[in-house]
This record gives sequence, C-alpha cells and structure tokens, in this order.
Amino acid sequence: MENLKTPKGTRDYAGEERILLESIIKKTEDIYKARGGVPFDTPTFEIKSVLTNKYGEDSKLIYDLADQGGESCALRYDLTVPLARYLGQTKTLKMKRYQTGKVFRRDQPIMNKGRYREFFQSDFDIVGEYERMAADAEIVSSACEILKSFSEMMDNRAFELRINHRGLVDAIMEVCGIPAPLHRAIGSAVDKLDKLSWADVRCEMAEKGACDASIDKLAEYIKMKGPLSLIAQLKATEISNTPEGAQSLNDLERLYELLIVYGIDECVTLDLSLIRGLDYYTGLLLEGGYAGGEGSVIAGGRYDKLVSSMQEKTADTLAGAMASATIKKKTKPLPSVPCVGVSLGVSRLFGMVAAPSRRTYVDVLVCSVGAGLFEERMRTCVHLRKQGICAEYFMGTSGNFSRHSEYAELHGIPFLVLFGRKELEAKEYQIIWGERNDRQKQTVSLEELPAALRALIGQGSSV
Amino acid sequence: MENLKTPKGTRDYAGEERILLESIIKKTEDIYKARGGVPFDTPTFEIKSVLTNKYGEDSKLIYDLADQGGESCALRYDLTVPLARYLGQTKTLKMKRYQTGKVFRRDQPIMNKGRYREFFQSDFDIVGEYERMAADAEIVSSACEILKSFSEMMDNRAFELRINHRGLVDAIMEVCGIPAPLHRAIGSAVDKLDKLSWADVRCEMAEKGACDASIDKLAEYIKMKGPLSLIAQLKATEISNTPEGAQSLNDLERLYELLIVYGIDECVTLDLSLIRGLDYYTGLLLEGGYAGGEGSVIAGGRYDKLVSSMQEKTADTLAGAMASATIKKKTKPLPSVPCVGVSLGVSRLFGMVAAPSRRTYVDVLVCSVGAGLFEERMRTCVHLRKQGICAEYFMGTSGNFSRHSEYAELHGIPFLVLFGRKELEAKEYQIIWGERNDRQKQTVSLEELPAALRALIGQGSSV
Repeated sequence: MENLKTPKGTRDYAGEERILLESIIKKTEDIYKARGGVPFDTPTFEIKSVLTNKYGEDSKLIYDLADQGGESCALRYDLTVPLARYLGQTKTLKMKRYQTGKVFRRDQPIMNKGRYREFFQSDFDIVGEYERMAADAEIVSSACEILKSFSEMMDNRAFELRINHRGLVDAIMEVCGIPAPLHRAIGSAVDKLDKLSWADVRCEMAEKGACDASIDKLAEYIKMKGPLSLIAQLKATEISNTPEGAQSLNDLERLYELLIVYGIDECVTLDLSLIRGLDYYTGLLLEGGYAGGEGSVIAGGRYDKLVSSMQEKTADTLAGAMASATIKKKTKPLPSVPCVGVSLGVSRLFGMVAAPSRRTYVDVLVCSVGAGLFEERMRTCVHLRKQGICAEYFMGTSGNFSRHSEYAELHGIPFLVLFGRKELEAKEYQIIWGERNDRQKQTVSLEELPAALRALIGQGSSV
Repeated sequence: MENLKTPKGTRDYAGEERILLESIIKKTEDIYKARGGVPFDTPTFEIKSVLTNKYGEDSKLIYDLADQGGESCALRYDLTVPLARYLGQTKTLKMKRYQTGKVFRRDQPIMNKGRYREFFQSDFDIVGEYERMAADAEIVSSACEILKSFSEMMDNRAFELRINHRGLVDAIMEVCGIPAPLHRAIGSAVDKLDKLSWADVRCEMAEKGACDASIDKLAEYIKMKGPLSLIAQLKATEISNTPEGAQSLNDLERLYELLIVYGIDECVTLDLSLIRGLDYYTGLLLEGGYAGGEGSVIAGGRYDKLVSSMQEKTADTLAGAMASATIKKKTKPLPSVPCVGVSLGVSRLFGMVAAPSRRTYVDVLVCSVGAGLFEERMRTCVHLRKQGICAEYFMGTSGNFSRHSEYAELHGIPFLVLFGRKELEAKEYQIIWGERNDRQKQTVSLEELPAALRALIGQGSSV
C-alpha cells in the first residue's frame, strides 16, 4: 500500500481541519471584502511563458505539466502573475480584487514548518491610478488588520509588520557603490539573512561581485530598523541625493501620513534589510509575521511594471515568427498598470493557529429508543431540515440510544432529539444537550420542536 | 500578445461571475451541510497509479504532470478516487463528506456548452455501513433538493432525476445473453445514446462482440423508463430470476419506500438506459439535469469496491519488488468500504444560471464635494469599517462628486455617503441611494451614520 499517500509536499484537510481552514479564509476574505475587494479566480495552470522571468532565482521551482501534444503549461507559482496576465489580456486598468487559491512550488517541503509544495494563499491587490500612496495605505492596513485579527486567535501573540521600498534598496546600493546590474543578485543575498549568517551572506555577495568596501557600507544601512519616524533621519543622509532615494523617501513619508489617519502608524516598522527576492516589485515592500513564528505569514508590495512586461516578453517570443510572417496588426503596447498587493500564507497560518474548531456543521442528531423506529427518525429529521435546521438522524440499524449518543459525541453534534414508541404516541419529543454527566432536557411537541431547537442553537449551548 | 490568454479549455472568473459561482457553491454546500456533510480537501494532483484503471474508456483524458525527477503525478480527474485513496490510506470506515474543487480532463473543450478542461465539481459522499439503502436515499434526496433549488433560479425550469442500478444493468445483459466480460464495453456503448443514434450504438455493440439477437432483446429493456412503480413490473420478469437482478430490484424497492418518507418519490424516474461509464460503480446509479439543458448537471452512484481495489492494484505494482525483497509485514487487506455519492457540475450549472448577480460586496462609497477632502473621505471610511460596514472611499484625486457617483454606479455600490467642507463643519453627513433620477437622501451626524446605514442596508434598498 505504499502508493496510498498524497504526493510529496501535499496533504489532505478533513473535517475539523477543513472547517478551521475555511474559518481562516473567511476571516481574511471578509477583511478584503470590507475594503472593496471583489472575488476572482484564475486557472490552476497557465501557459508556461506567462510564468517565466518573474520569480528571480526561484523560477526553478515552477511545476510543469507534461507535454501532451498541446500548449506548454505550468502550475501557477503565485496568484500575482496570473492577475497581471488577466489585466494585460483584458486591458483592465482599475480593479480591487481578492483571490484565495492553491499555488505550487517544487521546493524541498518541510511539513512541520508549514512548508508545502501545494499550499493556499489569499491575495488582495489594488490595480490602477489613485491618489498618491492611497492604494499602498489600504494594502498596509489590510495586512495590519489580518495580523491583528489572527493574533487574537493565538492568545494575542505579538506580531510585526515590516515595510521597505524597492527604490530605497536601489538607492542604498547605489550610494554603497554596487553597480546597477548587480542590484538584484546582491538583493537576493541580503534576502537570505533570515536563514543564513552574516558571514555566509557576505561571502555570497563577494562571489556575486561586490567589493569589500561596498559590502561594509551596505551592512551599516541594512541593519537600520525602527519606527516610521526613521524616514526623517534617512532624508538627511546621502540617500536622498539620488533621484530614486528622494522619490522613495517621499513615498514612504506620504504613506506614514496616511497610516496616521488609519491609526496604525505604530503597528508598522521600517526595515532596510527587507528586500523580497521576486523580480517584479518596484515600490513598497511589506512582510509580516508573529513572534517566534517560522518566517513571514503575509507579504507583498508594489509591482507597477509587471503588466507591461507581460508584453515585452511575448514580443521576444514572437520575434522569430513575426520576421517571417506578414504582420497585419501593429502590436499596441500595453499601458503601464500600477498595482500593489499583499498575499497571506493561509496554509502556514493554519499550522500556527491551534484554535479549538468545530467538527461538524450539524446541530442536531435525531435518536430513538427501542427497535423499529428507523423510519420515524428519518421522518423527524426531514421535518427539521424543512425548517432550515442542520440535522442528521442515526442512520445505523441499532435501536440502542447509547449507540446513537456515542455517534453524536464522536462527531461533535451538540443537540439530540430523542423519542421511543410511547413518546411518539404522546407526540412528545425530548431535546437533550450538555455534558454526558450533566445532561439537560426539554420536552416539546413536534410542532414546537424546530423553534425550541433554534432557540437553543442560538444560545450556543453544546455537548 | 498571443500568449496572453488562459490555457485551452480554462477560464477566469472575475467579479460578478465569481460572486455568482460562489453563490452556487454556497447553496450546494448548505444542502450537504444540512445532511451532516463535513468539508474536505485533497491535493490538486495525485500519484499517477492512484488514478489508473478507474475511469474506463475515459482514462485517456487524465492530465499528467511532467516527470521532474520525483514521483509520477497526475491532476485529479474527479473527487471520488482521491476520497477512496484517503479512505484506504487512513482506514476510515465512516464519513459523510462534501468537497468542492476543480477537476481536470484533457478533453476537447466546448466552452459554449459549459465543457471545459478545468472545471468545478461539488461532491457529497456517504461512506460506511448503515441501514439498507438509507445512505442511497440521502444521496438521492440531496440531488433532488439541489435540482429543485437551482430550478427556482431558472424560472422554475423543469428537471429530471433518473436512477438505475449497476446490478440491474448486469442482470439485463445476462438475460439478453451478453457474456459477462463484455458487460462494461457494451454498457459504455449504451452510455453514448445521448450523443449517438441507435444505429451507431448498435454498430458499436456488434463490433464489440454482441450478437444481433442479444442487441434486439437489450433494446427492449433499455427503452424502459418511468415512475418508480415500474419496479413492481420488473420484478415479474425473468430479470428477477438472476441473483443480481433480484438483489438490485429489492434495493430499488427499498429505496422507493424511503423516498416516500422523504416525500420525493415522484421527483425520481427509473431509466434502464442509464449506465454511467465509470468502472467503479457497483449499485445505485443516478443522473439529473434540466429540460433543454446540455446533458446532466448532477450524477453519481454507489461504489462499494473502489476502496478495496486501491490495494489490489498497488499489490500488483509491488509484486515484482516483493518477490525479490524480504517481506517484513504481511499486507493486511483493506476492508470493503461501502460508499455512495453524488457530484454536481458547478461550472456547467454556472453556464445555465443567468441569475442577476451583485457586482461587489461593498455597501457604501464615501464621497465628497470640493477639493482637498481626500483624507476626510479616508477617515470617514475607516470609521465605518470599524463599525463593521463594508465601505470604500473614492480613492482618486478628483474632488468632483459626479466622478465619485459614477464610480459607485460602475461598481454597483448601492449607498453613498456625501459631505463637503460646510457639512463637515456642521458635522452633517448625507446618505444617498436609489436610481440616478430618483435619488433618496437622509442627513445624519457622524455618530448616527453607522446605525443609519445599517438600517438602510438591512432593508436591501439599492441603486
């Protein structure tokens, strides 16, 4: 039976696990909905060329479908690039969308740290031109509310939401004397600081071509971390002499003002070591997690050039074909579409939240005492369902009530409805609830049964 | 930009489309929940050998992942085989589970008929030993309630729920003189009657080895279709002389009795031409759809041997390895696990339900008149969200109210909150709703604003 398992790095979610997962997704989507997010769904796989050149060094983790005589496809790596493909394809210029779905990475799984090959993400992205930094502030406030809201489910566990700016990263590299073509490679080395020691990262930087003086100067900057008031300090340094540095510090200053309006400026930390390896970020960067947690649970940023880059890449691919064919329509360039978004690692959060969860959505089990009452249980249950009550009846052959109540206990069904032949004749139904050694009871008629149950369910009493 | 599209046979669902899809899924899952279903999720792909030999002639439609130096995997073809894999793997003997997810078939897509390569199914399955035909009756009642419930969304469109029994199919083939090894192949020919003419199906049967006399006799049986009272008639024929025939007619008779308790016996038709090609069915077969619809939207049946067959197949695969290795543990045979279930084609239903849908979950847009009020709109919106109201503010730079109200109209946001500088000083906020040429207004203070909005939203007034 060695193949009766899920593929490496994947898992099932059954019953109460799935109920907990659904509650995490609902809580998150409610926060997105409240901010104007509309729901969205894209295919599980994309045409392969849509995904290439987007993920920097992580591109090797993309999962390919077999070539089956059709298009060359790959499983989606995140929910951001499919959104950009949709925006380019439909020429949509404005949208606030959220999406929850599975993404796939052929990485080394570390299941007990919540690192899977297939996992759920829940994303919120704001697309389009708005008042300066307004969309960024909405995204930061969503991330902040999500962290706060799940903190409550984890005994008010402390959380940290760190931000940075890709322009600031580039400006720092510039003043440190790192040549522009090396910025991404050096950035991806800095990005490993949460996994590797400074000595190892330093070594990687040197291998990638940075000189010692540059690395030493860089070390001074990337250790800077603190409240958003740090921005004012940075404005007084040589960083603001570079155009990118000046622009990004202005952006962050404006963001700070808006976060004060939201009342969340003190929840956010500026962290100059935050780089985020993905190639597509162009502005704000953010990442958040919990004290003592394994890495971040939420992350994102601004990616203003991703949509227009979808076309450049395609143009390259088509260059050969175009040269030999009559080009009937001139390709109209895709407009630059400003986008900023955030992505919650739902599966990772699932591994951290050990919340007590319900085992079923059913509130009532219809039971009986004595033989031959199967169809009466069924009839009573159908009656309750018609009144909108989530009800099961004991579907086994046993007429023994203790077997029935064991079933309810095993499945976490809080209320029992019980009758025997005598009670049926007298048209009296017992409602039973509470712990096994502290049962509570109420006797009602069939007509009163649905209302009585609804009242009890509403009070949230349970076994 | 030719690659800026979704892969063949797949599609995006944006905004109101996804809202409609979610409402279909919710309606369906509520019906499963009310019957004791607990939610469930399995990986998008399975180890390839789990999926082989399960789907009869349709196995060629399975989508493989590329061999990437690991396990050989394939995208799931349905949600039933992954459930059986889970049951075998975890030795679970009793479960009522529902699952909504995407499944994948590398078929020729016919998008305008709702036939995709990636599509949503929503399944409900009852696993385990219960009172005879009790689980089957629950499944039939779920299918019936689903058909009824979506009929209401389609102007009470007529629906039909047909049932049959795999044992009855085999018994009929036996009395018609078709040899047992041909039953599946001949059945799969009959299954094509909704697409092919009788002449073509007849031809296929002959090619597959059935003689003329058998085909003629079979034709008489498979044209039988009618109310469940037909069962009594069939019990008087030679079919009930075969053990399989007698057993399956008894099953159907008992099902009929239970459907009378549910009050849905008249919604169900017995149809002897219903075969369902999948190899794994062993008992009840069911299929339902709407008048004038393209094929069925819901289908299922009983598959009592699927779980134990997962092991046989694996044992075969391992035979070679076992012969040459020391077998430390004797493989304990998997128990036979009775299962019956139903699967709703959510994507197909989506194509049929042209229900008016909302475009957003947001109820309120905060607007202003005059320049320089951006941060006041933001502040007011944050205030409403803290009170649990789904609100956006106009995030653009324009101070022109007509631009703000256009945004609300475009996105289907029903209520506007409006102020100018004077109103802010007087602390008076206007709530505006109704059609553009029939606006209604109410003026309230900031403190009264959330309650006033909640009252209006509760009444369901909208633009």
